[in-house]
Amino acid sequence: MSYSAFDHPVLSGLVGDEEIAAFFSLDAEIEAMLAFEAALAEAEARAGVIPEEAAKAIGETCAKFKPDIASLKKATGRDGIVVPDLVRQLRAAVGPKAGQYLHFGATSQDVIDTSLMMRLSAVSTLLLDRLDHLFQRIDTLDARFGERTLMGRTRMQPALPITVSDRLRSWREPVLYLRQFLVRVDSQLFAVQFGGAVGTLDKLPESGVEVRAMLADILGLIDAPQWQNQRNVLAEFASAMSQITGNLGKFGLDIALLAEMGGEIELVDGGESSDIEGKRNPVAAEVLVSLARFNAVQLSGMHSALVHEQERSGAAWTLEWLTLPQMVAAAAASLKLADLLCTRIKSLGTVAKS
Amino acid sequence: MSYSAFDHPVLSGLVGDEEIAAFFSLDAEIEAMLAFEAALAEAEARAGVIPEEAAKAIGETCAKFKPDIASLKKATGRDGIVVPDLVRQLRAAVGPKAGQYLHFGATSQDVIDTSLMMRLSAVSTLLLDRLDHLFQRIDTLDARFGERTLMGRTRMQPALPITVSDRLRSWREPVLYLRQFLVRVDSQLFAVQFGGAVGTLDKLPESGVEVRAMLADILGLIDAPQWQNQRNVLAEFASAMSQITGNLGKFGLDIALLAEMGGEIELVDGGESSDIEGKRNPVAAEVLVSLARFNAVQLSGMHSALVHEQERSGAAWTLEWLTLPQMVAAAAASLKLADLLCTRIKSLGTVAKS
Amino acid sequence: MSYSAFDHPVLSGLVGDEEIAAFFSLDAEIEAMLAFEAALAEAEARAGVIPEEAAKAIGETCAKFKPDIASLKKATGRDGIVVPDLVRQLRAAVGPKAGQYLHFGATSQDVIDTSLMMRLSAVSTLLLDRLDHLFQRIDTLDARFGERTLMGRTRMQPALPITVSDRLRSWREPVLYLRQFLVRVDSQLFAVQFGGAVGTLDKLPESGVEVRAMLADILGLIDAPQWQNQRNVLAEFASAMSQITGNLGKFGLDIALLAEMGGEIELVDGGESSDIEGKRNPVAAEVLVSLARFNAVQLSGMHSALVHEQERSGAAWTLEWLTLPQMVAAAAASLKLADLLCTRIKSLGTVAKS
Amino acid sequence: MSYSAFDHPVLSGLVGDEEIAAFFSLDAEIEAMLAFEAALAEAEARAGVIPEEAAKAIGETCAKFKPDIASLKKATGRDGIVVPDLVRQLRAAVGPKAGQYLHFGATSQDVIDTSLMMRLSAVSTLLLDRLDHLFQRIDTLDARFGERTLMGRTRMQPALPITVSDRLRSWREPVLYLRQFLVRVDSQLFAVQFGGAVGTLDKLPESGVEVRAMLADILGLIDAPQWQNQRNVLAEFASAMSQITGNLGKFGLDIALLAEMGGEIELVDGGESSDIEGKRNPVAAEVLVSLARFNAVQLSGMHSALVHEQERSGAAWTLEWLTLPQMVAAAAASLKLADLLCTRIKSLGTVAKS
Repeated sequence: MSYSAFDHPVLSGLVGDEEIAAFFSLDAEIEAMLAFEAALAEAEARAGVIPEEAAKAIGETCAKFKPDIASLKKATGRDGIVVPDLVRQLRAAVGPKAGQYLHFGATSQDVIDTSLMMRLSAVSTLLLDRLDHLFQRIDTLDARFGERTLMGRTRMQPALPITVSDRLRSWREPVLYLRQFLVRVDSQLFAVQFGGAVGTLDKLPESGVEVRAMLADILGLIDAPQWQNQRNVLAEFASAMSQITGNLGKFGLDIALLAEMGGEIELVDGGESSDIEGKRNPVAAEVLVSLARFNAVQLSGMHSALVHEQERSGAAWTLEWLTLPQMVAAAAASLKLADLLCTRIKSLGTVAKS
Repeated sequence: MSYSAFDHPVLSGLVGDEEIAAFFSLDAEIEAMLAFEAALAEAEARAGVIPEEAAKAIGETCAKFKPDIASLKKATGRDGIVVPDLVRQLRAAVGPKAGQYLHFGATSQDVIDTSLMMRLSAVSTLLLDRLDHLFQRIDTLDARFGERTLMGRTRMQPALPITVSDRLRSWREPVLYLRQFLVRVDSQLFAVQFGGAVGTLDKLPESGVEVRAMLADILGLIDAPQWQNQRNVLAEFASAMSQITGNLGKFGLDIALLAEMGGEIELVDGGESSDIEGKRNPVAAEVLVSLARFNAVQLSGMHSALVHEQERSGAAWTLEWLTLPQMVAAAAASLKLADLLCTRIKSLGTVAKS
Repeated sequence: MSYSAFDHPVLSGLVGDEEIAAFFSLDAEIEAMLAFEAALAEAEARAGVIPEEAAKAIGETCAKFKPDIASLKKATGRDGIVVPDLVRQLRAAVGPKAGQYLHFGATSQDVIDTSLMMRLSAVSTLLLDRLDHLFQRIDTLDARFGERTLMGRTRMQPALPITVSDRLRSWREPVLYLRQFLVRVDSQLFAVQFGGAVGTLDKLPESGVEVRAMLADILGLIDAPQWQNQRNVLAEFASAMSQITGNLGKFGLDIALLAEMGGEIELVDGGESSDIEGKRNPVAAEVLVSLARFNAVQLSGMHSALVHEQERSGAAWTLEWLTLPQMVAAAAASLKLADLLCTRIKSLGTVAKS
Repeated sequence: MSYSAFDHPVLSGLVGDEEIAAFFSLDAEIEAMLAFEAALAEAEARAGVIPEEAAKAIGETCAKFKPDIASLKKATGRDGIVVPDLVRQLRAAVGPKAGQYLHFGATSQDVIDTSLMMRLSAVSTLLLDRLDHLFQRIDTLDARFGERTLMGRTRMQPALPITVSDRLRSWREPVLYLRQFLVRVDSQLFAVQFGGAVGTLDKLPESGVEVRAMLADILGLIDAPQWQNQRNVLAEFASAMSQITGNLGKFGLDIALLAEMGGEIELVDGGESSDIEGKRNPVAAEVLVSLARFNAVQLSGMHSALVHEQERSGAAWTLEWLTLPQMVAAAAASLKLADLLCTRIKSLGTVAKS
């Protein structure tokens, strides 16, 4: 149970983040999938596609349903996806009368992709908050040390003196850029996925588009035609995650280099060594670099998954599942560590002798 | 002279593109660098930083200057960048009087990054045109075959029949998305780079910002504070390139699968085999997949280069040079091949028997 | 607790593997680290570096020690590594007299890297067994269907008929190759890491090399000079993992294409769809392709981590932790799924009409 | 003509290498392909498959044939490969009588893959020589400065003093490792590819294996059954290239950090800056890091190309062409720059005060 450092029982002390991890827990996934099924039933009832009572029964069951996880796991081994068995279990819980209307016109990918969008949308808001917070941290550093001097360094050589403000600007501007990136993503990208078996809403020839719009509205997502085999949104969200880690990797490397060269920075609370008494390692700064390299690599997987053959690709879709959650984890860890690192800077720059 | 398939004397017949390649020729690079120096002199003269006559002399020399390439190559081996020697040669050509004002307040990275932005901006316009053209090609296919039937396929299995229009939609929507992506990039990202030795415009304490704005205006770029160690724009442009190839890779794979399964597509002018008479390979379709995988991989390099230490990183910057031009080449090749492939579709889908 | 599909409570039904996962559990990690400390004490006692009784006390404590995990997690957040706090806890358990001899001359990286080698060595043996088993599975297919006919396909087009044996050969040869690769890795690569604070065995100037050889012997590893900042072994092991998934990805894609085209293969027990009754998806085949793409991407991270600055790099080392375990998980899943897929092939090829 | 820095008219001054580039020129490719056709004819004549005179005529023509490049380029755009047109041109030059025996039983991939193996084998020998040379350079540094002191640094912090020899060991050991890697590759991996249309030597049912063995012998390659869709050799060779650049990237980064911190290294002939008089940038050291990141990224493409569907994959094969040549170029550049950098080290370490 410890393949990923992000939820490793010990390493998560370094790169874990309970707030974000909650959105990638099985509970959160299932909750969002149940919300999809309930909202679909509600929308279809409003559109007159299924009976009101059926929607009510489905909604009530979804609100309290606890699936048999062992069965889901076994079925996923066979089906490659959790939805067929989840729907089967849920249908049994709803009962035969309303159960026949459950998941009507939907396919597994509709459930899984929409569940992902709901959670990414919430995560995105949290990441935005963290960017804002980090921005303030850098502002605070600017207020404290901005006017001091720092040796400007180009190509690994001292060049000309700059102010601490000058350096802080190169850490702060990307935070602004990333903020705008996420705001745009938030307003344009998180759309409902609803297309049915082959994306044509074949079981709702009359009211499919209307149902989809209501479904989006209930779930707080953008309404858009199915995008089951058009994965730009995920590629672009992944780029945002990698740009977060990449920019904060630059910040981390700058701090690590300052720490190594000494004289211009004072850090408190660095990591201890198991053998050298009193040595303090700039652990958070180094890990920011690791996370930057990690996400830069993962991004390649998400872009490779754009090659999504035909109406739906199991191969490309599964690759997304193997890749995207940890990219978000890395971005979250990166923001948390960068924030922490700012608070550990006790002094930055040198005061010019008068 | 043939490391890259994109300018290989034979393979460029497959993936080359003279129109786009022109922007990555040494001539184009130097021309843009000379334009930078001329524009800088002009802006600095207008701001009263250097004499008008110096600017005039510099402009006139830049307009016709042909550098000694062998010297540039040798110097680049030593300096890691072409600019110091180019400026030296140019200064000699301008003469001592005006030459002292050449490149005033600028650093090598200002010249190279701005030259890149000028060319990417032009390339971006061409790619937009190609996306429009491809969009029309798909529309034409829709007009001809849209109402026919195609077997919808999910997870490598026949699912339910769809219309040809349904499939075409999954090829066309990404083209629209990519169009919007490039339009946004075009209006927000291509900015002048001007910061001087350490990004602080240290030699133009009074008029630096004014000069930069004029410089941007003359060169047709956006004005923005220096971004020498903040490389989001390049990371995002690279994402656009990879999303182009990724989406067209999906198109290519769909065509290759249709061709392999037979019955639903007729292609003309496929590739010949050296041993089997009459076999026709869907070469362009396959190469679209190759280009998608290629750019997905390269993207990782461009995001790794976000970790740009201190005021300027030779390591990260050089990595960009090794990576970005071929990402553009792959995107261009991809658009060209996708367009060509559309014209090779003689028939798509099946006509339902009545 | 579900960032990674490999230990996700539901997705692990698809790509999980308890046998291999056991070696990446915290228990296994700690067990191996305690074994290192016990073996080090034993070796140092034999060499006369520490008292026999101290080694005995350390060994006895290590055999039954259960660390405080919450403390390890918290300390890892600070130190970037688990070892300082583990040694502190262990030292307290051993008592002051023997405790002063615990971890003598070692550094955190010695403990962590050696623990990894011990576990990779065991995993490697299991993977070898699986390769052998898979080889037999393919042989069985050959015995059953080898003489039948299959359409040979090149560049996504039918070319000439081949025998099923011909195709099986392209699946079996790589298994042999991978077997040899792992056998070589097994005999040459899994070495003890023991170097002390900066790799110079500074606290054991007389007997360091002798102690290291005994330590290797006790732990069943190869003896070799410290390799703390020379990570070729890990890069090469990662290549092996990626070559396993890559070759089995070829097998999976071949099966998926056969399944899609129909007529030449019969599979049993495919995945169910949530909306189309009776459709059977070649899920295992598709996932083999996903795992191949996944590991190909991850490999880039492991090779980037070769750039391990100075005597020890926190940034590159942490990147290995984020990457390698899941590469092993993917290789293990791949072997398991390929084996399973072989058993699902009910028929392959066509019997020539006479 | 300048997409790749490795053959860019100016940047090749930094990362180019004429000795290695020669093997990737079109001339070298064609020469090797002609050698294949001549050797095949010779082997087939010896085996009695084709007439002696035909083989003689083919051999004579191949020895002096100069193809029409424009035609090859145009045909490659259509066929995706150069071979069909090359064979057509060559057949015309040989004349109808012997021409019918040209390329007998071979397919395009046989020609291209074997041509690649011939050239990689030669390149590998050159890289081995460079590794040896670099080893000597490091030995020379050891003889000059080995006993001096260097601050040992772990996790970007000073730890304990080491000797210069200690640090040199971490640069030299990988060179030995890489040497062994290449020696093994050289003796095991470079095999002839000869399988015919679908890999079954269908046109030489009696003597195919014998002809293949003779062909391998004539061309100085290992004899092995066809590996057209089993690409482990290329994946492993690519790993070797990336391990070369990765290890030398570590060397480069160490030098750059020494140069930045100052006091322990003196470099001569660093790069000049366009704006700061007298500043000397450790350009070669930085570029070693760039090349390491570059190849780590590219490796992912070569491993993705292991997923080579069916008997021959145009998509995966073309991806290799886009990727492998520049990986070799990067490894070659890396060895050249590391060698150069050794010669630029005027002083390393500090002399202990007595």
